[in-house]
Amino acid sequence: MTDLSAVLARADENMPQSLERLFDLVRIKSISTDPAYSADCRKAAEWLAAELNALGFEASVRDTTGHPMVVGHHAGSNADAPHVLFYGHYDVQPIDPIELWEDDPFDSKLKEFGNGRKVITGRGTADDKGQLLTFVEACRAYKDVHGSLPVRVTILFEGEEESGSPSLKPFLDAHAEELKADYALVCDTGMWDGETPAITASLRGLVGEEIIVKAASRDLHSGMYGGAAANPIQILSKILAGLHDENGRVTLEGFYDGVEETPSNLKASWEAMTGGDVDLLEEVGLSELSGEKGRSILELIWARPTCEFNGITGGYTGQGFKTVIAAQASAKVSCRLVGDQDPEKIRASFRAYVRSKIPADCSVEFIEHGGSPAIQLGYDSPLLTKAKTALSDEWPKPAVIVGVGGSIPIVGDFQKLLGMESLLVGFGLNDDRIHSPNEKYDLTSYHKGIRSWARILAALAKK
Amino acid sequence: MTDLSAVLARADENMPQSLERLFDLVRIKSISTDPAYSADCRKAAEWLAAELNALGFEASVRDTTGHPMVVGHHAGSNADAPHVLFYGHYDVQPIDPIELWEDDPFDSKLKEFGNGRKVITGRGTADDKGQLLTFVEACRAYKDVHGSLPVRVTILFEGEEESGSPSLKPFLDAHAEELKADYALVCDTGMWDGETPAITASLRGLVGEEIIVKAASRDLHSGMYGGAAANPIQILSKILAGLHDENGRVTLEGFYDGVEETPSNLKASWEAMTGGDVDLLEEVGLSELSGEKGRSILELIWARPTCEFNGITGGYTGQGFKTVIAAQASAKVSCRLVGDQDPEKIRASFRAYVRSKIPADCSVEFIEHGGSPAIQLGYDSPLLTKAKTALSDEWPKPAVIVGVGGSIPIVGDFQKLLGMESLLVGFGLNDDRIHSPNEKYDLTSYHKGIRSWARILAALAKK
Repeated sequence: MTDLSAVLARADENMPQSLERLFDLVRIKSISTDPAYSADCRKAAEWLAAELNALGFEASVRDTTGHPMVVGHHAGSNADAPHVLFYGHYDVQPIDPIELWEDDPFDSKLKEFGNGRKVITGRGTADDKGQLLTFVEACRAYKDVHGSLPVRVTILFEGEEESGSPSLKPFLDAHAEELKADYALVCDTGMWDGETPAITASLRGLVGEEIIVKAASRDLHSGMYGGAAANPIQILSKILAGLHDENGRVTLEGFYDGVEETPSNLKASWEAMTGGDVDLLEEVGLSELSGEKGRSILELIWARPTCEFNGITGGYTGQGFKTVIAAQASAKVSCRLVGDQDPEKIRASFRAYVRSKIPADCSVEFIEHGGSPAIQLGYDSPLLTKAKTALSDEWPKPAVIVGVGGSIPIVGDFQKLLGMESLLVGFGLNDDRIHSPNEKYDLTSYHKGIRSWARILAALAKK
Repeated sequence: MTDLSAVLARADENMPQSLERLFDLVRIKSISTDPAYSADCRKAAEWLAAELNALGFEASVRDTTGHPMVVGHHAGSNADAPHVLFYGHYDVQPIDPIELWEDDPFDSKLKEFGNGRKVITGRGTADDKGQLLTFVEACRAYKDVHGSLPVRVTILFEGEEESGSPSLKPFLDAHAEELKADYALVCDTGMWDGETPAITASLRGLVGEEIIVKAASRDLHSGMYGGAAANPIQILSKILAGLHDENGRVTLEGFYDGVEETPSNLKASWEAMTGGDVDLLEEVGLSELSGEKGRSILELIWARPTCEFNGITGGYTGQGFKTVIAAQASAKVSCRLVGDQDPEKIRASFRAYVRSKIPADCSVEFIEHGGSPAIQLGYDSPLLTKAKTALSDEWPKPAVIVGVGGSIPIVGDFQKLLGMESLLVGFGLNDDRIHSPNEKYDLTSYHKGIRSWARILAALAKK
């Protein structure tokens, strides 16, 4: 029996107790957004710190101005192995509407889900208590077999993820030295499907801008002025319409600087994953790909930049009609970024383009609404390769590399504040109903999730 | 002394009494929008009917569901002369804010206005009691000299013009036979300037449309869907941006059918009237002509059709930012029409264009917001020519032919319900402050207005 197979066997043996521990943690009503549950949040943090200390971590509850953090350190058995920071969150969403729950949201239990599928019921089982325990229980199996962990591990559990993480950045800033590791492991994402594990390797960045086009000093009557006076809705429409060419590409100067073509094997894998279907669109009543032509849906959402119009308003927008020429019109525009696109260069290019379209007697104001670069794990990074192999060894189907069209703030924070890449691996499924009544976590997700982390830790320990 | 010069001399002699009669009428507080003044509205109608009867009209107060109409008939001395319908309104705007009036709004009087200019103060002096009395006093001078009028005259005074004219259409419908004449004379407009009388010969028509572009079945997250899902704001922007070409011309198929070039002498006269200045725009903070290139400001507003965007909305329009792809976006669009443009053909062309721009998995809804053709007195019509000469004989400068960029409902109603063209002549000035505190009417407007109508009546009586 190899080192790893002994650990995996131990993880299997531990399952009944692993399950009881998850039930215990779910029972603690750690709803972060509701002050009535503040004591529960602290209780969850204390429960976790105690578990980590029992596993040989040096762990403690750390106060913040909100709910506490849990930080634990374990030196591991091999000083040459990498140092990883594992992140999860112990807080959960509120449970209303309570009448829609089939089972008590906090009295977690194992339940038959049809077709022999077993699930763990309760709020937070999938988001994120069950997921974070997959890592803790993997550590436990290692500890049980080898008395230590194969790599140096720091653990950070947050208690405010479901309420905007107000304390996170200040905490990372204040404890940067303590928390900095070679890379982060984050377990708060999902599988591609029940048989196919997924590693999230890219997250798009964002530039947000609001533009306010101003024409006349007051609203004008379209009879008295129409045909002679500038109409800011018309100016704005021309500006927006000019931002994409006939092939759906963004026309801003320098927009594609830093955008690289996705490796062809990855593109092929993404096309294979959907088989050309656009289910994601069909779920929301659409059937055709918009945006850049000649690219698959997953590539468009995960690996291509966009320029989207998120809001527009001007003139009379109530019931009926008013023959007015508005004094101003405004739009909110955001670009999703990939690769090495520079948010501030794109903002500057956008503003220059808009200004070039404003008539001499009109003006434009800009309001900045955030900017963050994309995050991308090198597709050929050893971290990714090792994790992919480890996951593929555990699950029926090989692991896939996926992207996220939006941002996951913690990943940006780790990158920006701690200079650390993140490996996002999780075992959630699309039907887990996170944030909704009847949240559940598949027993398979939990069990094979634990085994997956054991495999990943073993892989990371190797040169 | 010619017939006309005797009448004009009599009008001059009558001035002291003409003034007293205007003071009397202004004293009646006929504010139509405020039910507290209903009795005053009726009193004004009775006062007018009595005056008309005293001049030999067969006049009476006609009840409506609102304030009464006054209708008077005078056969005139010449059965071969045309039959004219004169229109004015005896109701006035409210007077608040009362504290801003320098003089009692209903205790009308003559006042020195600086530089020897004399004005008649009070609510309704310019809009429209003073104006309608110019015609009545012209009739009086004729009656005094000749015992009759040179043409057959029907008079219609309305008492709800300032409150939306709810009874007007039903009244015109019910009394079409009685009110139908060869053409209407309407005295509710202004001069070009204090020395230059104006005849309004064209009013633009209107087609109003609202379009609602629908994409996904719900709002989407721009991170999850951006780059792949249709964005209705983008679709709408392209639609609006495509409605005008680089020269400001409307691109809709058949849009310019029925639009004729303005006669070059009229264009020259309009250019001369502004001397190339765009004061109208500068008053509202603009300095450049928008719309069709190569045309003067007056031509653009009076004689060219437009397609204007009156309102637009979609997505998130509140404070801050939301990375949403909206389910729908909508815009209100109106076309101002001239010449023989057909509102319904243009509506159909607009809808066909919009539909052609909607992706297959999106949809569009239309809401109709009215349609009316332009009204245009033939620039070479004898009515216009006679009135122009008559006015030019009276005032220091020759009369100018002007347009109105918007509509004047009564003119459309006369056209549609009675099949009658209208000659719009009035003596208001830009500084009359109609609808505002300190409304006034220049003594010159009143005096030369009376003389102008005398001249016009004489001109119309001639073959």
